[in-house]
Amino acid sequence: MRATVLHATRDIRLEDVDDPQLFEDSDALVRVVAACICGSDLWPYRGLPEVSGPGRIGHEFVGIVEATGSGVQTVEPGDFVIAPFAFSDNTCPLCQRGVHTSCVNGGFWGHDDHQGHPVDGGQGERVRVPLADGTLVKSPTEPDESLIPHLLTLSDVYPTGHHAAVSAGVTSGSTVAVVGDGAVGLSAVLAAKRLGAARVVAMSRHEDRQRIAREFGADEIVAERGKEGAAAVREIFDGLGADHVLECVGTADSMKQAMLSTRPGGGVGYVGVPHDVQLNVPAMFGRNISLAGGVAPARAYIEELLPSVLDGTVTPGLVFDQTLPLDKVADGYQAMDERTAIKTLLSL
Amino acid sequence: MRATVLHATRDIRLEDVDDPQLFEDSDALVRVVAACICGSDLWPYRGLPEVSGPGRIGHEFVGIVEATGSGVQTVEPGDFVIAPFAFSDNTCPLCQRGVHTSCVNGGFWGHDDHQGHPVDGGQGERVRVPLADGTLVKSPTEPDESLIPHLLTLSDVYPTGHHAAVSAGVTSGSTVAVVGDGAVGLSAVLAAKRLGAARVVAMSRHEDRQRIAREFGADEIVAERGKEGAAAVREIFDGLGADHVLECVGTADSMKQAMLSTRPGGGVGYVGVPHDVQLNVPAMFGRNISLAGGVAPARAYIEELLPSVLDGTVTPGLVFDQTLPLDKVADGYQAMDERTAIKTLLSL
Repeated sequence: MRATVLHATRDIRLEDVDDPQLFEDSDALVRVVAACICGSDLWPYRGLPEVSGPGRIGHEFVGIVEATGSGVQTVEPGDFVIAPFAFSDNTCPLCQRGVHTSCVNGGFWGHDDHQGHPVDGGQGERVRVPLADGTLVKSPTEPDESLIPHLLTLSDVYPTGHHAAVSAGVTSGSTVAVVGDGAVGLSAVLAAKRLGAARVVAMSRHEDRQRIAREFGADEIVAERGKEGAAAVREIFDGLGADHVLECVGTADSMKQAMLSTRPGGGVGYVGVPHDVQLNVPAMFGRNISLAGGVAPARAYIEELLPSVLDGTVTPGLVFDQTLPLDKVADGYQAMDERTAIKTLLSL
Repeated sequence: MRATVLHATRDIRLEDVDDPQLFEDSDALVRVVAACICGSDLWPYRGLPEVSGPGRIGHEFVGIVEATGSGVQTVEPGDFVIAPFAFSDNTCPLCQRGVHTSCVNGGFWGHDDHQGHPVDGGQGERVRVPLADGTLVKSPTEPDESLIPHLLTLSDVYPTGHHAAVSAGVTSGSTVAVVGDGAVGLSAVLAAKRLGAARVVAMSRHEDRQRIAREFGADEIVAERGKEGAAAVREIFDGLGADHVLECVGTADSMKQAMLSTRPGGGVGYVGVPHDVQLNVPAMFGRNISLAGGVAPARAYIEELLPSVLDGTVTPGLVFDQTLPLDKVADGYQAMDERTAIKTLLSL
């Protein structure tokens, strides 16, 4: 089969690899229908850190089950399934507590599983799914093709935005600001509104992203960044700041911006993979700003988020502004690297 | 009247000062019945930072109202009152959200108020209380003398321990570890049990403090510190760590110990005033460890905590292992500085 392989910084190729096979009774084989490129894929693509050799990549996909091991009970060949960006057994004490990304038997696509078998990346034609019963979520109906992009966001960006909102404590009536206008930040706007936020400020200086934020329910847009951006958010919320701020970038600057946008006693939910983030703990302490979040346990949220995607109430797939066939995957990376695309869908 | 004045590092004296007077219609004058010394008073006492000149000190007291301004409605002369460690109006948007320590009109004992009037410290014979309606909590009954130490803890340590537990997310059935065996850490044990924690581990190597922790409901004691202590806590809780860890010290080491004691997806509630704390954000992110807390809005909690103190269900005043008359205040500081006392009550 063909799968995406990252060879070196900005050297990414679709190439022939071994067909996946069932190794364990709990495995399933999935034929990928759609995959996509994540902002976090850009870090190794950009050489941060530099890759040490060819490696499989991609962690977001939906597809059709082709085969299952003898122990698999919840999915069967022909089922349309959503794969979260980590595999997990959904039964261990940490999965039971909703932290599937810390599953004691789990792991990440493109790396070995606990039995030492290689695990495929998501940007390929087929994927062996370990712990299929725990990992895969089956769509109750065969989805119409127009739903595919929206369902694909359930692999990562939509639950990740949701995790930011849940972690920050967003509930009905909350005031919210979102730092970051990438696909995750935009998804966080949607998630906050879905949770009942009364007023959501999206922070973005890009007109195309502002437009999606508005479609996702943003009540106001703040184009300024840094201290000026935070001051504008505080101004909107009675000079105090938002109850909840969703940090969806992961840099030192974005975290500072988030903290300064939060009212005393408020909460920052962060899902941007942190790079060189230093926190001003005494300032957080004096103002009782909480910080919660982390790598999103997407699996924990998919069942909750799925129905309103299936019935069209929400359209999270609007974050995809570029669709390419899988064999143009390198073009997709380049577009996202150069920020000419927000997020690229790879169709198969 | 006589009040405690800190002159320089380890130079603290009880001396004659001006009698307080009513400046504003919202003021009350309170005759102090009991005050105490806080671990946080030791920082300036030890010269961290060095004091620039004589200053009033103390922020925990209970007493009898002697006089009120014409606008005061909730207390009257003769009332027994509890003063939280910060004054606040209890009506501003931040007080309404339970963050009384960030009250837009509030402040701290021993510093000027928003009208520019000096505010007395708590370790003196009398105190002018600004914003008396918002600040003071009246005891519904004239308390028996034996209750005074327990009521005095409502000024600071008991609500501060409670804030750690609430911020960490402790609820019925939680597993909890408490880092720090000072008066706040011990209070946090009590607070966690009151909130229904199923199993609380107190981390302490001092027998006298371990005994109080047990009286407050600690189920287990871990004497080890640092990495070894955290490993012992994880061992107790299925190798994963506690759901909630209460950080009641405020040093880099204690915060690290707290983080390492928390299970993935768990929460650290911190109330130890942070000194040189640096957080390992990538580790927190990967394990979804949240951090919440800060300077405790004691005023927000006193009414909730008061009834079980008055009826003797809880006895938070056990944290006082030394009682001195006010004129021995310097001895009290020395004892706490040298750790021969956990917490010193000053009787008047």
